[in-house]
This record gives sequence, C-alpha cells and structure tokens, in this order.
Amino acid sequence: MTEMRTLKVALLGCGNVGAQVARILIEDADALAARTGARLQLSGIAVRNVNARRDVDLPQELFTTDADTLVKDADLVIELMGGIEPARSLIVTALRNGACVVTGNKALLAQDGPTLYEEADKAGVQLSYEAAVAGAIPILRPIRDSLAGDRITKVLGIVNGTTNFILDQMDTTGAQFADALAEAQRLGYAEADPTADVEGHDAAAKATILASLSFHTRFALENVYCEGISSVSAADIAAAKDAGFVIKLLAIAEKLTDADGNDGVSVRVHPTLLPREHPLAAVHGAFNAVFIEAENAGELMFYGQGAGGTPTASAVLGDLVSAARRIVLGGPGRTETTTGHVPALGIEAATTSYYIGLDVADQPGVLARIAQLFAEHGVSIEIMRQTIHTDTASNVESAELRIVTHRASEAALAATVEAVKGLDVINSVTSVLRVEGV
Amino acid sequence: MTEMRTLKVALLGCGNVGAQVARILIEDADALAARTGARLQLSGIAVRNVNARRDVDLPQELFTTDADTLVKDADLVIELMGGIEPARSLIVTALRNGACVVTGNKALLAQDGPTLYEEADKAGVQLSYEAAVAGAIPILRPIRDSLAGDRITKVLGIVNGTTNFILDQMDTTGAQFADALAEAQRLGYAEADPTADVEGHDAAAKATILASLSFHTRFALENVYCEGISSVSAADIAAAKDAGFVIKLLAIAEKLTDADGNDGVSVRVHPTLLPREHPLAAVHGAFNAVFIEAENAGELMFYGQGAGGTPTASAVLGDLVSAARRIVLGGPGRTETTTGHVPALGIEAATTSYYIGLDVADQPGVLARIAQLFAEHGVSIEIMRQTIHTDTASNVESAELRIVTHRASEAALAATVEAVKGLDVINSVTSVLRVEGV
Repeated sequence: MTEMRTLKVALLGCGNVGAQVARILIEDADALAARTGARLQLSGIAVRNVNARRDVDLPQELFTTDADTLVKDADLVIELMGGIEPARSLIVTALRNGACVVTGNKALLAQDGPTLYEEADKAGVQLSYEAAVAGAIPILRPIRDSLAGDRITKVLGIVNGTTNFILDQMDTTGAQFADALAEAQRLGYAEADPTADVEGHDAAAKATILASLSFHTRFALENVYCEGISSVSAADIAAAKDAGFVIKLLAIAEKLTDADGNDGVSVRVHPTLLPREHPLAAVHGAFNAVFIEAENAGELMFYGQGAGGTPTASAVLGDLVSAARRIVLGGPGRTETTTGHVPALGIEAATTSYYIGLDVADQPGVLARIAQLFAEHGVSIEIMRQTIHTDTASNVESAELRIVTHRASEAALAATVEAVKGLDVINSVTSVLRVEGV
Repeated sequence: MTEMRTLKVALLGCGNVGAQVARILIEDADALAARTGARLQLSGIAVRNVNARRDVDLPQELFTTDADTLVKDADLVIELMGGIEPARSLIVTALRNGACVVTGNKALLAQDGPTLYEEADKAGVQLSYEAAVAGAIPILRPIRDSLAGDRITKVLGIVNGTTNFILDQMDTTGAQFADALAEAQRLGYAEADPTADVEGHDAAAKATILASLSFHTRFALENVYCEGISSVSAADIAAAKDAGFVIKLLAIAEKLTDADGNDGVSVRVHPTLLPREHPLAAVHGAFNAVFIEAENAGELMFYGQGAGGTPTASAVLGDLVSAARRIVLGGPGRTETTTGHVPALGIEAATTSYYIGLDVADQPGVLARIAQLFAEHGVSIEIMRQTIHTDTASNVESAELRIVTHRASEAALAATVEAVKGLDVINSVTSVLRVEGV
C-alpha cells in the first residue's frame, strides 16, 4: 500500500462547535482518512486564550494565539470564530494561499459573502459553509448540486432553533412569550441577550444565503425584510391553534412578480401561520427544517438538528472531507453559480394570505361593514368567524372576529387594516399575521 | 464573451421519466447552460420503436433505435431504459468511452452495481444515480458528501410510493389490502402486476443502495431480508392505530452486533409499526422519506416525491448538471468510498420491538401464563392490553390480547411465538409485526 498523503487542517476558534470538530478529527482520524484518501492532520487551533476551559479535553500543544501563522501553513482551514473580523481577513489569507476554507459564519457570509466567493473563485479553491444554515441538515449542497437542473420557486425555512423552541413552548403550554423565552434561556436554547434570535436577525442572515443559492443570484442582508417574534402573544397562538394553524418564524425566499410586472425574489423573515397538517408544522422544539418547492421536483423537506456543537460539527466535517477529496483527486473547486441575476423585491411585492384578529362591538351589521371595507380594498376574504363574549359583571357583549384572507399584497392589506381601524365599531385590531402553506 | 463549449447528451429510453428529461433539456437549455458553463445538447434518444406515442411532444429526428452508435458519440449518457440488458452493456460502453453516466436503474445497481462502479473508477468518470432511490428527494448525495465526516448508524426509509399509498389508504379508510391495491391501480400508483412493489422487491433494491452508501461497503440484494405488505390486514392496521401506531413498509439498514459479538449491518425490508408522532408517520400517500440517524448529526429526515416522471427527472438533471460541471472544470469524478468493509448480518441479528396480537380464551390466569412464557424465552413485555369480546348469539366470551415487547432478537421472538401457539388457551396468533421508532 502506498503512503497516504497528509493534509494539514487549521482550526480557528474552539467554542461549542470547534471543540467537537477537533475531537472528531482526532478520534475518527482513521475513518476520515479511509473516506478521504488522505490523512487530515489537525495542525493547530487558534484561540484568544490558550488556557481557557474547553468542553472537550484536547492536547494543549495544539492551541495557539497566532492564527495568521497557522493559516499560512494549512491545506484546509476551518473558521468557527464567528463575527466579522478577524474571521474575514483570515479567510481571505487562507484562500489567497490556496487553502480550501470551511466556515459556519452566517453573519460574515450574509454581510460579505460575495467578496469571499470571488476570492475563492480567483484562487480556484473551495469555500464551503453547510454549517452556516440549519446546523446538521444537509441543505446547501442539495440546493446547489441536487437541484442544479431544476428551478426552485419557493423556500420556507425554520432555521432558528431558539425561536422555534419558544413558539413551540407557547403552542403546547399556552405560555406567554416572556415565560417561554425564560424557559429557553434556562435550558440553554437561548442566550442571555436573545436579540439576534428573537428579532429574526439570525434567520435573516440564513435567508440571505438560502435565497442566493436557490436563485443563483447574490442577495444582501439589506434585501431581507425582517420581523421577529417578540410581539407574538399567547392570544395569537391560541387563536391560531383554534383555527387549525400553528405560528412559526419562517425564512422565506419566493419568486414573485411585483405590481409593475417585474419578476424578482422576495426574501423575508416573519412570524407566519401554517396549517397544522403542513410538514413544517410538525417541526418541534429546537429542530430546524427547510421546505422547498421546485418546478420539477415538487415539494421537498429537509429536517434535523439546527444547532448544537456535535450536530453542527457533522456539517463542518462533511464539507471538510468533500474539500479534501477534491484536493486528493485534483481539479478545481466547484462554487455556486450566480448567473440568475434576479432582482430582490421589497416586502411590498409579497402577496400572502393574512390572518386578522379584531375586537369588535357586537352590533348588527358589523360583519357586513367590515366585509364591504375589505372588498373596497381588493382584499378577498376566505374565512370570517365571529365569537361572542359576554362580560358577566357588566353584561356588555363584545365580539371577536377572525378573518383569513386570500392572497393579497402587503400594501392592500396595510391599507385595509388602516381603514378597519377607523371604523367606530372596532375596539382594536388584535393581530395581523401572514399565512403560508394554504 | 467566449464561445461556450457544447456537451453531447445521449438519452437511452423515453418512458415516463425519459420524456420529461428530454423536455427539460430542450425547454430549459439556456438556464442549464448558465448553471453548467456548457451547453447540454440532446444528441439523440434511443428507443425500441421510434414511432411509439410519447407523453411529451419531442422532435422526431432525435429518435433512433441505434443506442450503441448514440452512446459512442456522447459526453454524457442518461440511462432510463430499466432492466438489466441492454442497459448494463450500454453503460459499460459509455464509461469505457470516457462518458459520464447518469442512471435511475435501481434493479441494475442492486444486482450489478460493483461492476459498474469499478468501470467508472477505472475510466475516471462519474456514475451518478440519485434518481434510483426516492425519486426527486436528494438523498444519495447528502449521504455520500454531506455526511462524509459522520458515522451513520441507522437508515429508515419509506422508499416505495405504491405501498405507502396502499398502507395510507388502509389507515385512513379502514380498507382491506385488496381494495386499497385496486384503488392504487385505478389511480395509476400501482402497476397491473404489482408484485415488485407490494412484495418489497423494489424497496429491497433501494435498501441495497442506501446501505452501501451509508456504510461504505458494497451490499448485494441477497443480503437483504425482504417481506412485503400483502399479508397486512385491515385488522392489523386498526389494532396498530388503536395502540397509537401506524404501519409503514420500511427499508432499514442498521449497524448491529450479532449474537456472537460480530459487528455488521442488517439490511431489511418489512412492514413496521411506527409511533404516530414519529416524523415518518406523517408521510402520506405516494410520498417518500428517508430518516437517518448519525452519531454526530443526530436525526435527519429527507422528504419528497418518490416517483413520477417530472420529479424523477429533476434528480436525473441534478446529476447531469453536476457531472457536466465536473467535465467543464476538469478533474476526475468522485465516487463513493467502500472502505468500510462491514459484513452484512442476517435478519436473525436484528433486534427490534414487536407487536403481537393474540386471540385467547377468556379464562382466569391466561395473561399470567403468556407473560410467564415470554419471560422464559427472554422476551420482555413493555405493554400488554386485553380487550374482552362477547358473541351475543352464542354468549361465548373471547379476549384479544395485544403485546408490545422491548427489543428482542428475531430468534427469541420466533421461539416465543411458537411456544405461545402451543398453549391450549390460544385460539390464534393474529399478527406479529416489528416496531421501530420507540
């Protein structure tokens, strides 16, 4: 048997995911070598503090604070530091040096992906980032390769485990948002400062990456409309449940034609009602899933763990072995194609169904007036349901009205809601939520 | 802009899938060229009868009966004829000629895959077959590439749409097998001779391919234990439903240790009970799904359309574009690795939970005697439930006993069932079914 080639692997960062990647590289070295055709030698781990406590017991001599030297001597670089700098500069150095790079840095990719893709193209090496979206779930490679001969028309993703855990808790226990968030923090599903998750910023970064690959066009974070879940109330969840829906925070990328007849893609993140029988409705806890509609393939769904050190390490290592095989077999890397050139459309181009909850006076003719007003704004009502409440103390009756519309534009819907608020018979608009999957 | 290279694509077979592949190659030529970096020119379609009626209107001049000449002049060959010969010889000719081959021929791959993989390796070209398992669902590429750095421990697949449709019909309508089969035939989900589907042969071929890729070892069809669904009764389905289960025909490949302590893989196809809350339980109609457990990634599921001309064509074209990109970029093909060398284990090595239905005499002490007998055979009971029936005409009481065991070996279970049959208080053993997902 001929001597097997050795490829040097530099690891940048040793947090939750990095520590597991290092462990697997060491523990599974023989199996990885058999699958790769080369030994993957962990040449060092760049960290800020070489004496910090780690989740995993790793050889102390691997740690260094000199990331730059480590990167310059590597065939493969794994970047798991997060944040923009120094991650960006180190990745650029690695690519220019001819190393393949694997990263899970969604924030960096969403903000500055094009620069990095171009550097990889110029150097003829691979830049892979399966771990950046939906953790362990193989989703980017299937979109890029398996669906390369198809046309994706829509992507709906539950890509943030924290918010899915919170919404699932609210759905199953009836908890308010604040209590479900506290529970998520207690269990380690949410960070002390949960802003990036609950306000949808993390999902928006992932939506940018999913949309770019799905539509062969580079979208930027500022193309993404973003609305988080902090204003979703227990009452919203209960009303949705009663109507046969579940509320999920979805990252959506969808081919559309705007009001002026221009084709484009709407990329957006917002709380969304889904029918309970939709495959995404069954995604519980901190799990992730991405639902794809393609012209030929039809409906596809990819489901699995969206976060966690070990699951995410699986995605990192899949990219690493694939890149290493390419080095062993020779031949340049294959990057995503960006020849689609479809424009990003603003949220105003999106047409979805809406769920609207109204607290109304219980008077004859109210339903007719509201229905008339919707019709005047060109918003067609699919379902209208009224429930009468009697306050036994005051003996005052009020009515709760729940409306599900057919597909309507954001603008028409907003105008309708404004007009509805102006009616004297309306006590309040209790919720306005988008509906998918109907 | 430089002139784009043209790659000649030969299509063998023009049935359900082939006709859609040809249509998309012609209709989407520009988009495919943009994504590939080369024009994919359909150079001809080899068929038995050039004048046969097709589902799709295609240029008559493309059709030929001379497959051999067509193959020898192609850069890429798509084989969708099915069957063993002449498909095998044509694929070998293509590979030896340096063409990349895309096929959906699961029967050929299950029977003679190793020969074909070796020919592709020798020629340094790609042999891809995503369409052979689970139609449009990207499953083989994720297993081969995305999970290349992980260790798969178990694969559970609903990989035959016909049987899933039939079992789903039986589950939702209470129909008997024969009636559900007739309905499937009426709707075009089952063929006039449904043997290959309902007896599990089609699923067994797919199990062979899934197991080979998942465990980096070439398994043969004769390593697969195979049991179809023709003996599943409406009563089995009803009893399972009542106990919170659904019956699915699963293709299973699982890492195990046999009774002698040998590690290996059990590959099997059989009707299986799944808890209703298991992700695979929600796969309805003719849809397919593959559930994977991996050491690091944890649980993953891939869901979509498992058959049909257009969805399957999507998988064929994904392989085609990927192979063509490789040709354009240069560099040899990447095949699956088979360095795992794990032995195939017989069905006797499998340990699963079992569901056992018994029709017993309603006498005191019956439950205790049966429980005692299970204990003597080392089979531990998880749930035991008795329902009493009174025949109002004869006033004779009988009892139905339903048992779910903990994990037990096939051998221990078979011995237990034999012993139970010998008891004088047993009228009949109404069902013995394996349970997964508990």
